[in-house]
Amino acid sequence: MATALLRLWPDAQFASGPPVENGFYYDVELSHRITPEDFPRIEAEMKQEIQANHPFEKIVVSREKALTDARSGRLGALSERSAPSKFKIGNLEDIPESEPISYYQNGDFIDLCAGPHVMRTGNIGAFKITHVASAYYKGDERNPQLQRIYGTAFKNKTEMEAYFHMLEEAKRRDHRKIGAEMGLFVIDTEYVGSGLPLWLPKGAAIVEELEKLAKETEFAAGYVRVKTPHIAKEKLYLTSGHLPLLYAESMFPPMELSEDVEGSKAVAVKRDEAATASTNHESRITRYYLKAMNCPHHHRIFAAQPRSYRELPLRLAEYGANYRYEQSGELFGLMRVRCLNMNDAHIYCQPEKFAEEFNAVNEMYLKYFKIFGIQKYVMRFSTHDPARLTGDNAKFVNEPALWKQTEDMVRDTLENSGINYVEVPNEAAFYGPKIDVQVWSVIGREFTLATNQVDFAVPERFGLVYKDRENTEKTPL
Amino acid sequence: MATALLRLWPDAQFASGPPVENGFYYDVELSHRITPEDFPRIEAEMKQEIQANHPFEKIVVSREKALTDARSGRLGALSERSAPSKFKIGNLEDIPESEPISYYQNGDFIDLCAGPHVMRTGNIGAFKITHVASAYYKGDERNPQLQRIYGTAFKNKTEMEAYFHMLEEAKRRDHRKIGAEMGLFVIDTEYVGSGLPLWLPKGAAIVEELEKLAKETEFAAGYVRVKTPHIAKEKLYLTSGHLPLLYAESMFPPMELSEDVEGSKAVAVKRDEAATASTNHESRITRYYLKAMNCPHHHRIFAAQPRSYRELPLRLAEYGANYRYEQSGELFGLMRVRCLNMNDAHIYCQPEKFAEEFNAVNEMYLKYFKIFGIQKYVMRFSTHDPARLTGDNAKFVNEPALWKQTEDMVRDTLENSGINYVEVPNEAAFYGPKIDVQVWSVIGREFTLATNQVDFAVPERFGLVYKDRENTEKTPL
Repeated sequence: MATALLRLWPDAQFASGPPVENGFYYDVELSHRITPEDFPRIEAEMKQEIQANHPFEKIVVSREKALTDARSGRLGALSERSAPSKFKIGNLEDIPESEPISYYQNGDFIDLCAGPHVMRTGNIGAFKITHVASAYYKGDERNPQLQRIYGTAFKNKTEMEAYFHMLEEAKRRDHRKIGAEMGLFVIDTEYVGSGLPLWLPKGAAIVEELEKLAKETEFAAGYVRVKTPHIAKEKLYLTSGHLPLLYAESMFPPMELSEDVEGSKAVAVKRDEAATASTNHESRITRYYLKAMNCPHHHRIFAAQPRSYRELPLRLAEYGANYRYEQSGELFGLMRVRCLNMNDAHIYCQPEKFAEEFNAVNEMYLKYFKIFGIQKYVMRFSTHDPARLTGDNAKFVNEPALWKQTEDMVRDTLENSGINYVEVPNEAAFYGPKIDVQVWSVIGREFTLATNQVDFAVPERFGLVYKDRENTEKTPL
Repeated sequence: MATALLRLWPDAQFASGPPVENGFYYDVELSHRITPEDFPRIEAEMKQEIQANHPFEKIVVSREKALTDARSGRLGALSERSAPSKFKIGNLEDIPESEPISYYQNGDFIDLCAGPHVMRTGNIGAFKITHVASAYYKGDERNPQLQRIYGTAFKNKTEMEAYFHMLEEAKRRDHRKIGAEMGLFVIDTEYVGSGLPLWLPKGAAIVEELEKLAKETEFAAGYVRVKTPHIAKEKLYLTSGHLPLLYAESMFPPMELSEDVEGSKAVAVKRDEAATASTNHESRITRYYLKAMNCPHHHRIFAAQPRSYRELPLRLAEYGANYRYEQSGELFGLMRVRCLNMNDAHIYCQPEKFAEEFNAVNEMYLKYFKIFGIQKYVMRFSTHDPARLTGDNAKFVNEPALWKQTEDMVRDTLENSGINYVEVPNEAAFYGPKIDVQVWSVIGREFTLATNQVDFAVPERFGLVYKDRENTEKTPL
């Protein structure tokens, strides 16, 4: 594309031109303002370069040579020019001393580039310039404003057409558009908040029908239902390990109250009042957090009564509305929200029942896939990195023996079930290995639909025990 | 009882002896430690006094005379004694100068007392000493510790037996006891919080069955369901009027975030980080509140789409989990909580449909009463106090004409329906009159079961409108 632009506008000055998701762009400084009307002309020149079938040659050079070429205007150009390659001098400064410097050349065009490239221009079977935008050099508004020309390229025309068809379908099937047209939900950013959908009657009817289906399915699979509040004291999350650090950044900030204790009666005052309240009373700050997960509430339900092996496996299920403070830029309709209606369950069992229970959860997924017509899936088995149990970059609970034992159990279960899975190191939760169920939408987008996790750290943290057949205390899995 | 105690222990010194709910007590200083074993002896002496059928005579005296009698030990006594009536001197000090001072005398016993009393000791048909506790004189731990002897008295034996039977029943039927025994719910004060019940599987099953029944009932009555988050931005409650003042003290404190806005993308940081964050970025504090009521969320759903008279009445229903920061001392099992599962609905209608809709809600109550065997009820119609629309003690939205109009409408509807109701001035909500449905439990305790309210302030606050048959904008009721 740069060759084509130079043939049409020889004074073009190029900045960076990286690959991006689904295509590429090139930032260019040019007195002519490029519009979609120019795209056919540029594409025609590009076609010429493809037909010429130039090889892409890599040339490794010294920093001095590169600087000389930039100053003589040879970089991002078809030949030496009267003006220096102004942006390439700045680009060279960004390459650390320790890194090699390389050019790529195709035909007369030479540019600073780390590569890789296709072997020859003729390898590009289909391409299209898609749109043009503006961008500051190096993203800094004090630098010159450039034109950013976007395009995409494919092995052949069929693949490119499939891609553009997919984009059209995605637009047509965008659940945000459908949600608005059918009156399913609205997001009221101003009064309620981003990522906090209000379900309108038609949408709520769908949610309730889905919940009904899931309740029936879980009832048949031996689950019992519980119901827990949407908040809890800080102590719950300190015990689970989500606070003070491991999950805190995804949680909403606490609601802080100063609760004075006078005998057995606690008199509570709001924070504002607390500041001005007399200091004669002994007071302590109580922090309530919105729940970002149901797990610790369920563990406290397990702990609420003495448990016997006769009750196990105990399968506690709940539609928990969980609150997670996702960054604004990550929010996306109903797919990424700050209020998540999670069809959640926790199974407490004897270690020897693990394989059976874990497998039953996977089987339940398959049952749902059949109901909803989901044909393509993979179980993504995330394990820990033994190098990150201790030290500054520690990411996982430091229980090497438990990690090995649990991961072996999960792997064996997956192997024996014949389910489609891949193993991904270093992506486990901090408290144990997990399986993410990956599915693909009808337009080919990948989503994580569900997660099946083993948590071997939490039973001890919460002191969860049951009496076995011999009346001795055991820790459930 | 004091006479009886003095006959058995002549050195008894009495402090205060007031009536309390369901009985009375007397605080007494005595070297002998009274135990339940003493109760029959005391009761036998009391019976003698009743049989003697002494009149209770009121004697008004001067402060000087009372002080002299207290110093000579004549008060709270059968005769003058060697020791002064030590606590009566202190009691006299607590009577303001402006108030008259009176004695009551029965037989030989004279005591400082404001009265009133029954006419004669023989009017007491049945009585019982129930328990003994200890208490500091005037409730101050720096004062002497006294023995507080509790008793109760009734017109006849039948009434007393009914009372003790009711107490037994209340204990037997205490939902906290039943809840624990049957494994219905637990309150985990330490980890989750007071007033925040965790529903165990058996309890959750009851909740879900009740919700199912209500959903069916509401569906049949033309309600549609919605689903809203448990939090919202401050603006929602400023608009509804619950904040900054009218309801703030019953709400949990806000979750405060500093949200930086960079172009269209809001980058949010937690409050702790906000404090240390660079001040180059323009940032503002966003406050999210736990919802204490569903109303404003529903109003935003009404406002989310253009509305036509064809859609009215629009009846939005939801099981909203609402959070209210009740004082610790007010919490009581599931009856008074901080997380309230409210079977809630809001009806938006044309003013001319008001009577019909309001009546239909009351009829739905009657339908539920039949299902649950509730036979005794009264609709408690709370109206505003015209004197409290403005000024320092303002309590109601200052809309005199709307108050009159709405209260007349409600009153007419109640009159025409023939439903059992009472009118209670000055107890309306700040935004309109309401009906509290009062019912009685099988042991005779009164509860507010539901509330049917008219809110004439909120449609304008939220700018709620619909297009009528002539395509002009109207405000719904």
